[in-house]
Amino acid sequence: MAKIWAHSGDSHFLEPEDLFQQILPAALAERMPWSERDGDDEIVHVDGQTLRRKLPKLATKKGSGGLDIMELSTRPPGARDVRARLQDLDHEGIWGEVIYPSLGLWNPLIKDPELVRVASRAENEWIAEEIQGVAPDRLVPTAQLPLLTMQHAVEEVYHVADIGLHAVSLPTGLPDGVDDYNRDSWEPLWAAIDETGLVLSFHIGSDGADTASMYRGPGGAVLNYVETTFGGQRSAMKLVTSGALDRHPTMKVLVSEGGATWVPFIGDRMNEGYRQHGMFVRPTLSALPKEILYRQVYASFQHDDSAVAAYTSMGYRNVLWGSDYPHLEGTYGHTQKTLHELFDPVAPEVRERITRGTFLELFPHVSEPPEAS
Amino acid sequence: MAKIWAHSGDSHFLEPEDLFQQILPAALAERMPWSERDGDDEIVHVDGQTLRRKLPKLATKKGSGGLDIMELSTRPPGARDVRARLQDLDHEGIWGEVIYPSLGLWNPLIKDPELVRVASRAENEWIAEEIQGVAPDRLVPTAQLPLLTMQHAVEEVYHVADIGLHAVSLPTGLPDGVDDYNRDSWEPLWAAIDETGLVLSFHIGSDGADTASMYRGPGGAVLNYVETTFGGQRSAMKLVTSGALDRHPTMKVLVSEGGATWVPFIGDRMNEGYRQHGMFVRPTLSALPKEILYRQVYASFQHDDSAVAAYTSMGYRNVLWGSDYPHLEGTYGHTQKTLHELFDPVAPEVRERITRGTFLELFPHVSEPPEAS
Repeated sequence: MAKIWAHSGDSHFLEPEDLFQQILPAALAERMPWSERDGDDEIVHVDGQTLRRKLPKLATKKGSGGLDIMELSTRPPGARDVRARLQDLDHEGIWGEVIYPSLGLWNPLIKDPELVRVASRAENEWIAEEIQGVAPDRLVPTAQLPLLTMQHAVEEVYHVADIGLHAVSLPTGLPDGVDDYNRDSWEPLWAAIDETGLVLSFHIGSDGADTASMYRGPGGAVLNYVETTFGGQRSAMKLVTSGALDRHPTMKVLVSEGGATWVPFIGDRMNEGYRQHGMFVRPTLSALPKEILYRQVYASFQHDDSAVAAYTSMGYRNVLWGSDYPHLEGTYGHTQKTLHELFDPVAPEVRERITRGTFLELFPHVSEPPEAS
Repeated sequence: MAKIWAHSGDSHFLEPEDLFQQILPAALAERMPWSERDGDDEIVHVDGQTLRRKLPKLATKKGSGGLDIMELSTRPPGARDVRARLQDLDHEGIWGEVIYPSLGLWNPLIKDPELVRVASRAENEWIAEEIQGVAPDRLVPTAQLPLLTMQHAVEEVYHVADIGLHAVSLPTGLPDGVDDYNRDSWEPLWAAIDETGLVLSFHIGSDGADTASMYRGPGGAVLNYVETTFGGQRSAMKLVTSGALDRHPTMKVLVSEGGATWVPFIGDRMNEGYRQHGMFVRPTLSALPKEILYRQVYASFQHDDSAVAAYTSMGYRNVLWGSDYPHLEGTYGHTQKTLHELFDPVAPEVRERITRGTFLELFPHVSEPPEAS
């Protein structure tokens, strides 16, 4: 069977555990968050404070092989090693990829804007050099922003563009006290992202709250898994309904790992609310919400059959595939099987669009795979 | 243009304000919830207690015509009068309809299981006689259940079947202290619903919490509108992932007003979680979650273009149209325009399935419209 090469709109990298010791002055590094396990609890140390939380059952439960989900998700050789990663990718048939760093998940716990600013800057420089730098025509790591002060976030966008990164990511949930994405206070950031041409990306499951453990009892693992998609949908909706994307029609937004069929669905729901509640809606947009969503929001999926039909039958062009490498929800170990199941039944131009064309619209600097089928 | 006749999977009726005075002994009637407006606040009186809450902005805001959303949503003549309603329906081209009562929205505030039991029973008898009784081959009002005691709920299911009602509805959100729908404690109710052959229906926006006013600021009206759909999706998922529908393969569930394209999407998301997190998933199901969802869950939409394609291109058969009469989100006044826009472009058998065939699978006792086109 011919190898299908695909770019991935969703992948992850695990930084060295001592990254902050490597890249920050010692006095700052020791204030950065780090965590340890104590039975089923996680103890997070951050800036002199200690937070203990019970880990969600999914995080502590051992699967049939005796490994927990974190262990299973970091087993692939390239999870922590960029060069081993490229070998994994070549084997799987993945060429370009958007890569989300794993550190920074706890950044919302930091209360000192200056510490967040310095750490984000250092981490972005590190990913530019140590991830993107290894294969700049393939690896697209996403930058993080210091969100406690809008001015810092805006400055970091320009810095990120200066050091040659191509995407900047925001969490689907915000730290306490920070305005929601539909508020006008975000306008300077949208303007900076638009001006630099960076892609703005959201990865689902970054709500901050414990979305991942909302449900207990029968079916809980599946319910919690599905629940994570809604945060990505909400983020995209806020950018559409607030008028941010309407004011910046060249801005491109990627929602990673949340599937793609939600886009036609949420587009129709927004249109219904926008039209039927029209007398209560502010601001008025220059096009229907669905049109703006279709035009500027890109969505990646792994296995979803219906994502292909969202493109072929619902007119949503910006569908792209993603591997979620190296996570357990992803296709590592069965990438070719998944790609063949998804794309053997459809026309070559559909496969080309979803596996590579859509991705290249976001990241035209990424090269072609050696033997694109 | 030929009239398209459709059955509606989603409509509403406004009971008389003094309904409980009519149907309950005075000593019980005075304990039932009633509300009054005080500026932008609503004061709810229930069983000797008084609760004041600030109404969501959408509820107090005046639209361009000087009316608020409740006034706009109850303007059609048939909102409170069943005979006037039938004239409205004939004019719009709606034949059969699932009708949700409006009282009972505050039932979750009642703490006395006995009061809830008696009130539900009386209200169900009233809708059987005063709504369904007027046109039993067209009007399908949904019964409500007393949820504070499982035994009461189960008894009321059998009572509802005895008095000839065809559907029973549950809220997407539950009163404090009641187990979530994925818990095994619900099994007696599922068994009773399955045994009686009643359709189980959920109407979106019945989360109980203030989902309808989660968002403020730019785009808030549209964001709040879309947010209501998620509760219906969650309810359906709980019944699938917990194994309830797998144990009762003839049970049919209707999710009203939440759109239909979410079904293929959520089906794919559940399958991904179920397969990829398989080692952590309990219970194991006899089929993939998507298959069970497709088989037993029905979903109604009003305007969504993509709902038609969910049937034609994503293999989801149980799509049905709904008018949401008499609400502002519905099609009152433009039903024929909407039906022609949705169905003129597709094959007659697609129109037949979505406008009437799916509905008749749920409610085969409903008659055919006089001149079905």
